[in-house]
Amino acid sequence: MTSATLQSSTTSIKTPKAYEELMDRVRDAHLIGSTEGILSWDQETMMPEGGVELRSRQLAILARLQHQMSTHPKVGELIAQCEADRAFMDCDSVESANIVELRRDFNRATKLPERLISELAEVSSKAQHDWATARKASNFQMFLPWLEKLVALNREKAACLGIPAGGEPWDALADTYEPGCTAASVTKVFTPLRSRLVKLLGDLMGGTRRPSNRFNELALPIDAQAKFVRMVVESIGFDFQRGRLDASTHPFCGGSHCDDVRMTTRYSETCVNDALGSSMHEAGHGMYEQGLPNRAIGTPAGSAISLGIHESQSRLWENQVGRGLPFWKWCAPKLEGFFGRSIDGFSLDELYGAANIVEPGFIRVDADEATYNMHVMVRFEIERLLISGALAPKDLPGEWNRRYKEYLGLTVPDDRRGCLQDVHWSMGAFGYFPTYTLGTLYSAQFFDAAKRAVPGLEDGFAKGDFVPLREWLNKEIHAHGRRYLPEDLCKRVTGSPLSSEHYLNYLEGKLRPLYNC
Amino acid sequence: MTSATLQSSTTSIKTPKAYEELMDRVRDAHLIGSTEGILSWDQETMMPEGGVELRSRQLAILARLQHQMSTHPKVGELIAQCEADRAFMDCDSVESANIVELRRDFNRATKLPERLISELAEVSSKAQHDWATARKASNFQMFLPWLEKLVALNREKAACLGIPAGGEPWDALADTYEPGCTAASVTKVFTPLRSRLVKLLGDLMGGTRRPSNRFNELALPIDAQAKFVRMVVESIGFDFQRGRLDASTHPFCGGSHCDDVRMTTRYSETCVNDALGSSMHEAGHGMYEQGLPNRAIGTPAGSAISLGIHESQSRLWENQVGRGLPFWKWCAPKLEGFFGRSIDGFSLDELYGAANIVEPGFIRVDADEATYNMHVMVRFEIERLLISGALAPKDLPGEWNRRYKEYLGLTVPDDRRGCLQDVHWSMGAFGYFPTYTLGTLYSAQFFDAAKRAVPGLEDGFAKGDFVPLREWLNKEIHAHGRRYLPEDLCKRVTGSPLSSEHYLNYLEGKLRPLYNC
Repeated sequence: MTSATLQSSTTSIKTPKAYEELMDRVRDAHLIGSTEGILSWDQETMMPEGGVELRSRQLAILARLQHQMSTHPKVGELIAQCEADRAFMDCDSVESANIVELRRDFNRATKLPERLISELAEVSSKAQHDWATARKASNFQMFLPWLEKLVALNREKAACLGIPAGGEPWDALADTYEPGCTAASVTKVFTPLRSRLVKLLGDLMGGTRRPSNRFNELALPIDAQAKFVRMVVESIGFDFQRGRLDASTHPFCGGSHCDDVRMTTRYSETCVNDALGSSMHEAGHGMYEQGLPNRAIGTPAGSAISLGIHESQSRLWENQVGRGLPFWKWCAPKLEGFFGRSIDGFSLDELYGAANIVEPGFIRVDADEATYNMHVMVRFEIERLLISGALAPKDLPGEWNRRYKEYLGLTVPDDRRGCLQDVHWSMGAFGYFPTYTLGTLYSAQFFDAAKRAVPGLEDGFAKGDFVPLREWLNKEIHAHGRRYLPEDLCKRVTGSPLSSEHYLNYLEGKLRPLYNC
Repeated sequence: MTSATLQSSTTSIKTPKAYEELMDRVRDAHLIGSTEGILSWDQETMMPEGGVELRSRQLAILARLQHQMSTHPKVGELIAQCEADRAFMDCDSVESANIVELRRDFNRATKLPERLISELAEVSSKAQHDWATARKASNFQMFLPWLEKLVALNREKAACLGIPAGGEPWDALADTYEPGCTAASVTKVFTPLRSRLVKLLGDLMGGTRRPSNRFNELALPIDAQAKFVRMVVESIGFDFQRGRLDASTHPFCGGSHCDDVRMTTRYSETCVNDALGSSMHEAGHGMYEQGLPNRAIGTPAGSAISLGIHESQSRLWENQVGRGLPFWKWCAPKLEGFFGRSIDGFSLDELYGAANIVEPGFIRVDADEATYNMHVMVRFEIERLLISGALAPKDLPGEWNRRYKEYLGLTVPDDRRGCLQDVHWSMGAFGYFPTYTLGTLYSAQFFDAAKRAVPGLEDGFAKGDFVPLREWLNKEIHAHGRRYLPEDLCKRVTGSPLSSEHYLNYLEGKLRPLYNC
């Protein structure tokens, strides 16, 4: 056992003897998890059909082994030994932050009985399968029994995890995805956001101008699209020596660790903006992963802090950068090299406009920046009611459709395009949806801070210089791993707590001129 | 615990209660191993450079977990409980054969002390790295200290495993790769083989005719080659619903299990026969894996019996089929569809001849059918001496070069093209090489049996009908898993023990007319 001296502390405080042994155990458990990352990626991109059945069993046994290693009583003892060293814990170092985070992980993992974990895994695996069938058939009744089971199991899970003082059961679930997140804190941010978004949307739809959609309907060869998006994500800073970009039905970013990141995109024959947007989005996730400190792989200091912060990185590159005029100034002249004469006659204005079409629709994953968050709010409000018991699962479609009418002015035609569209609840994931909007709000607030810190940031984009932004994000956000909770990180990086002001100002500043309203 | 009735036995004998519990444990250990298969494949085909360091740690921890699960005392108890049921063990069923094989696995795994396993893993990992450097520099002295360590560790390993009565230490090592294989049994087969091969080679080199090599020097686009070899391996019966074909520096066949087989090939810009040969070779391995019974995945009944039998399948498709005139009758007219006018002017005779060029060379992996086995014999004889202690590692180059002169008439110019060319010994694998030649001999003997059993077999190849051969191999060889030891399987399938006669007759019958000697 070696005993290292803290680098990050001003005084020379030694790490407790238990620390290195604990890290070895934690890294071993992570090694198992890091293989699951490759197997899951392989399943979506490479695996032949025949592999399906055993793949789920491979993933299940790895998850079980990882859980056993993470909840081993020795892990609890070692954490307690570190905690007992007050001088060590008080010095606010990377190492003491690791102990705080490992305590949270250990408590959460050991609070859940094995029986509940297995039941949730089994029920959600079956529910997901039946959900896919139910969605296809637009048959809510087929999914209802599973939804009832999953809501009941998640209510039990919340009770096991413990409801924070003054909080509600939903909070315990959300904390898994976004540490410190509560329904009250979400509501505080979402309420002003909703009223201004509803107003903005009304104005845009009544605007006297509308960008042309022609570029989004242009057929372009998939292999040229693939070369184009690879060039873009490489230009913005994704490192292909430490990652890959492949195709899958649903784009995602996974992999093993910061030096082996696997992201995917999707291609539409008639809309290169589809591949471009999803590639830049996933590259944002990928660059966060690649920016985590290599020396801390497998420990909290080498892991992403939350889904919301993760989403802030993907949204920032997809939207603040990828739908901005400076980006298109750089990108537009490059299109001909990939697509030849097909792009003749598209002006910079038309390309920029096509990246910013606003059009209310039923489907969250196809939504634009102005309407996306309303989709999330509907889901947040409903899952909060489901978990508190105030809404019975059987009443889901009615509540869903009522809100779509109110927030987006749309009459949902069927449950396939309504409450059956997303996979999350069938996977047993309640408390997940708000992280999409929290990430969107963080992205605008971070981007404002970056512009203040780096003069001429956007002028650089127009010349293809994305390095300063990536380096700023690396230094301010990625490098910290899990050292600061999301809210603290936000205050540290931007000087103020999360607010929807930055996002709304950004959105209105961009969209009102385009729609002349 | 369920108690099933044996299907394969004539009398109705119940499996012991311990059997199903044992199978669950064995299948779980295999699940871990089956994920290693995907990770190893990924490492060679997909992984970005950055993944290297952690990948070896991922594989190491999975190997450790698999070893722990396979050697758990409970596994030993359950095997013993099954063995104690004499009626069950005496009935010669799939289930009793599973117990016999699991006993062999368990004894072997538990005989080796953890310390020796770790030391072998660590030394061979480092040795492999230094071997690669030493090979590049053609510097045997750089590799010598590792070779000495590896020979010593393998001598210790042989002593732990136990030397069979009347046998020698090499036997204990070879048994890991080829159950029942001994130096004496190999010598008995290799001695007559060598004398006839030396004679044949002399005659061929002095022959009055020589096939044209022109087709092997023809530049053809790699992507067209890839489409062509995919068509061929699909035509001979590799199932792409349950497997993949990708590219890697060294072709191999791996994957998880019979329903997810990953094989690779390599492409040379100027020789499509390189890709064709290695693809058909790996497809032979792949079809063996795909032919193992799906219901027995993770148990001996669902696993390949030996490397020699595995190699018989790859050699059979690569050589007996892929270098035969009937295959080329089918294949030749298809070339234009893939390569256009480039193949104008190549007659069937020229194509068939180009697939059968004989030319003694220094490198085993580039060798033709007539010289390949001589490369293997040199290695077998030398490793036998190293492991017995009769040859000191420092004297390896001299012994190597002396034999190349004697068997192949070649003066080895340097150790890079001599005793440093193969990775096996640096990986700690002694007793492995002979399985290449055993497989080659089995392939000819199996093919003769197939021709006797299926009238018109080769006429079918000329029409693209490879189904009867694949189905015969499925039924006679693949479907049995590890039920019969290699020698027993050979007698069962061909009616006689392994002999080099079949191979020599095949080879002389094909090559003497081509070389007019």
